[in-house]
Amino acid sequence: MKLPASTEWVLHCATTLAQLEPGATASAAQLAEYYDVPAPYLAKQLQALVRAGVLAAMTGPRGGFRLARAASDITLLQIVEAVDGASSPYECREIRQQGRGALPPEDCRRICVLAEKMAEAHAAWRSSLAGVTLADILAELPPTAPARTRSRISAIR
Amino acid sequence: MKLPASTEWVLHCATTLAQLEPGATASAAQLAEYYDVPAPYLAKQLQALVRAGVLAAMTGPRGGFRLARAASDITLLQIVEAVDGASSPYECREIRQQGRGALPPEDCRRICVLAEKMAEAHAAWRSSLAGVTLADILAELPPTAPARTRSRISAIR
Repeated sequence: MKLPASTEWVLHCATTLAQLEPGATASAAQLAEYYDVPAPYLAKQLQALVRAGVLAAMTGPRGGFRLARAASDITLLQIVEAVDGASSPYECREIRQQGRGALPPEDCRRICVLAEKMAEAHAAWRSSLAGVTLADILAELPPTAPARTRSRISAIR
Repeated sequence: MKLPASTEWVLHCATTLAQLEPGATASAAQLAEYYDVPAPYLAKQLQALVRAGVLAAMTGPRGGFRLARAASDITLLQIVEAVDGASSPYECREIRQQGRGALPPEDCRRICVLAEKMAEAHAAWRSSLAGVTLADILAELPPTAPARTRSRISAIR
């Protein structure tokens, strides 16, 4: 059960964008160089964040990505699920209905209790990430972080 | 982020073993036929449960697997982690320390706040599964389930 490396990329890129001046953007190429990750693949992930309403893609000479909403309105769950999907890591394939022990369909109208407990665990994971916004993350960074981030990202133009 | 199909197998097999008479066992071959899953691969998973102290493997003419502890002392977390490991699905590769935005090592003595929040979510998932025992699962099955399970599994001898 592993999340891809790109999960770390998008969490950090969103945190970086949250530190820019209001209205400022950063391109996929800038963010890729900022974190030394592959630009084409990162661009795909950033587009997924746009589709999820987390980022906005601005075109034109000052084009690039910025947050689509206030940092206090973007949760880690929204970022993670934008690129990794929202489905539970546990997939119930209904093995209770197969083999010599197969239960008849009329005994399987309710969700399997094991699947239910695994779904509850996934809900607890989601709830934990839904309780953390980008604003919460920024609040835990050193006070000098935004100025440093802006300076470093703009040096990449 | 997916758990393998075998996660469902071991959860169901442990639930089945929890319904046998005290001291009774079922073999990997029986359990494989009971759920119509591949016996050699299931046997490997059951051995992992033995190594984790969830199941006991009995040798001899009445050999096979049984619970190593009371059903009330075995949690879903122990079963899942016996076969899938206990590591978080999120892997922090410290991208904050690479690229043009790289933070110096002295600013990275504390865990990355994003990794910390992802770890908290994993802890919430683990805590949810640690709160459910096999006895809790049995309590939610129909009262007729154990007798049916025993009869079906012993018919496979």
